[in-house]
Amino acid sequence: MHHDPLPQIASQMNAMGQFARAASRAMAAASTAKKNQVLADLAQRLNQNRAALVQANLKDIKAAEAAGSDAAFIDRLKLNDKVIDGMIAGVKQIHDLADPIGEISGLQQQPSGIRVGRMRVPIGVIGIIYESRPNVTVDAAALCIKAGNATVLRGGSEAFHSNTALAEFIGQSLAAAGLPSTAVQCLQTTDREAVGAMIRLDQYIDVIVPRGGKSLIERISREATIPVIKHLDGVCHCYIDSHADVEKAIRVADNAKTQRYSPCNTMETLLVHDSMVEKALMPLVKIYLEKKVELRVCPRTRSALEQLGLATSSLVDATEEDWRTEYLAPILSIRLVKDLDEAIDHIETHGSHHTDTILTEHHGHAMRFIREVDSASVMINASTRFADGFEFGLGAEIGISTNKLHARGPVGLEGLTTQKFVVFGNGETRS
Amino acid sequence: MHHDPLPQIASQMNAMGQFARAASRAMAAASTAKKNQVLADLAQRLNQNRAALVQANLKDIKAAEAAGSDAAFIDRLKLNDKVIDGMIAGVKQIHDLADPIGEISGLQQQPSGIRVGRMRVPIGVIGIIYESRPNVTVDAAALCIKAGNATVLRGGSEAFHSNTALAEFIGQSLAAAGLPSTAVQCLQTTDREAVGAMIRLDQYIDVIVPRGGKSLIERISREATIPVIKHLDGVCHCYIDSHADVEKAIRVADNAKTQRYSPCNTMETLLVHDSMVEKALMPLVKIYLEKKVELRVCPRTRSALEQLGLATSSLVDATEEDWRTEYLAPILSIRLVKDLDEAIDHIETHGSHHTDTILTEHHGHAMRFIREVDSASVMINASTRFADGFEFGLGAEIGISTNKLHARGPVGLEGLTTQKFVVFGNGETRS
Repeated sequence: MHHDPLPQIASQMNAMGQFARAASRAMAAASTAKKNQVLADLAQRLNQNRAALVQANLKDIKAAEAAGSDAAFIDRLKLNDKVIDGMIAGVKQIHDLADPIGEISGLQQQPSGIRVGRMRVPIGVIGIIYESRPNVTVDAAALCIKAGNATVLRGGSEAFHSNTALAEFIGQSLAAAGLPSTAVQCLQTTDREAVGAMIRLDQYIDVIVPRGGKSLIERISREATIPVIKHLDGVCHCYIDSHADVEKAIRVADNAKTQRYSPCNTMETLLVHDSMVEKALMPLVKIYLEKKVELRVCPRTRSALEQLGLATSSLVDATEEDWRTEYLAPILSIRLVKDLDEAIDHIETHGSHHTDTILTEHHGHAMRFIREVDSASVMINASTRFADGFEFGLGAEIGISTNKLHARGPVGLEGLTTQKFVVFGNGETRS
Repeated sequence: MHHDPLPQIASQMNAMGQFARAASRAMAAASTAKKNQVLADLAQRLNQNRAALVQANLKDIKAAEAAGSDAAFIDRLKLNDKVIDGMIAGVKQIHDLADPIGEISGLQQQPSGIRVGRMRVPIGVIGIIYESRPNVTVDAAALCIKAGNATVLRGGSEAFHSNTALAEFIGQSLAAAGLPSTAVQCLQTTDREAVGAMIRLDQYIDVIVPRGGKSLIERISREATIPVIKHLDGVCHCYIDSHADVEKAIRVADNAKTQRYSPCNTMETLLVHDSMVEKALMPLVKIYLEKKVELRVCPRTRSALEQLGLATSSLVDATEEDWRTEYLAPILSIRLVKDLDEAIDHIETHGSHHTDTILTEHHGHAMRFIREVDSASVMINASTRFADGFEFGLGAEIGISTNKLHARGPVGLEGLTTQKFVVFGNGETRS
């Protein structure tokens, strides 16, 4: 349940909001050249100030060690030359992307004589709330700058000194190009109350992008009075159709599960047409078992595999809960289906509308699948692991959205913009 | 403050939500021909059942009269031949619109070999909450059907019998085309609690479109856990620039205020460049005063008009509050500005980001205005009154959105759709 923040945090957040709103006007009016100047300067500045960054980061590392954080956590927190190289490369990549702002589309003359089109414009002020990796600070700020937005950043309290140092350099690069350094602001407190205040600043912040675990995102969605571009579960499916090319099906279903276990676009449930058990499922089961993937199967899958002579003692019986679980681990649920309808029904009933793929050479089946499966990314003969801003050609990614409105699926620069109507007239009036 | 609805209403709403979600799958898969068949049948059915509609409407009229409602209210509630003609014409118009569903845009091959594009798809389930006019029932339902969505409608309790009869005919037209009649459902209760339950059905309803007064919309936005396509204030501006064509400026600024006083896209504040007082403002003031428009002016406007010999005793001094007030009445606030920057500043500080227009022949000023004014509709040399789905060529309008995300400005069929990523592969895997 929401409760009001302390007055001093509220007034601090309010001031940040006002600065951000004012800065957003300058950012929206800035030319592509100016925004690129900021990014080029930032890449250089980060390179020249590696020592200062490492030193600020050391304070966070020592605090984490003193708090007894585990090695993996400290590893994610660390800013070393390799991580700084990655940040610089990211900034350069965003520098090289086309500027989406100002594009006018669909301009058409209307019967009254006016010409009406849509112009792509920045959203305004983006609030980003994220966990411990400090590289998100630079990545998110650079994307927001390129899209002409102002940004309020709230990183994890464990990375406070690192983020503050990074934000300082970003501010210097903005100022060097004659833009307000307040276009990127980092929360000056590690107080958790500040997040609660930030997500209710609807007067000043236009959208919140949370990056982190499901519980953080659920809390923010519940309490925010600002629209949230959120990313919840990825319960992704592969369906091996009656008309699948067996070789492609095995290759894709293997890759979708085992290339990496933790991403949100990894397959969690494999659906197989009855006719494909011997040719496709059997070889796949052997691959999965060899790679130590735990298989949770429906009763028909178990008996079909037994009939083919497989020792099924290592297979687990899938429960109803399994069909809607995002494992993010070497666990896969498997279900046999009698036709395309049953496959689509299963996905619509149990899936999370993230990413689903069909393996088939049947044109009609493929077209029905992409039309009827209501997910952010729907694929034919491709691994679910492709659901990613870079693989989709967006050039960058601020996150993957499971919202239906505004931004759906991988979110790049365009997701940080909106469109307004523009009207070119010549003195027309309405009658 | 939200409180939980009565259990019986909650379970009734839950059942409606489940029906709507199931129906939305059939609607999304329906061909354009099938959806058009529903609309053609509906137009015919309404025409053939005029007597039944008038009879149902009579119950509402009698109840309203017994409750002592005023004549204007009863007039809005009334279904007579003319109103039914209008509904039928609206349905036919939506029948004739191009179907937005299924369009794939931006399909491009990526380095991995996959081809990635975006497909336009229905949103799913649209909840519409509106006040007493029963024609909205048919209009909203027809738009949702054409865009492939299921709909839950909650009309004003005063039009309960009319809406129930209309929904019955819509259901019959759906069934006649072999589509689920539950694709359009009308709340079977006039209980206000039901609205509270409906706007929290996030599991089943994807977006809420409220049509009504500001207090209704504010309440819904505050309490809903579902995204709301909302329409708040229209504090619209005309700015007469130093380089305005005087004749066009007078024509447009007159039209923008006086063509109709109550619409949201009517001008509420006129900004005038200092150099345009004698040529443009003076004649406009005379027009407004003749049309009995109350003028609320800044001190500089008053003294400039006095110097030109106008008797300014009828002019009212504008307060800070005036600059942010949507009058919806024959009242206009007027302010002199020294340049384009001051005009844009005023609009950004006091406006409601709805619709604003510049009167100018100066290309640079015009381009800065449409780029820097952050409103849903920004115009050059055209009346603000054009901000309308029909005038913008959308073919229909479910409302005007003051949101920044998803749908901004007039919302037509496209605003009832979203886009998903589609991937065409040939067995590609991620490495």
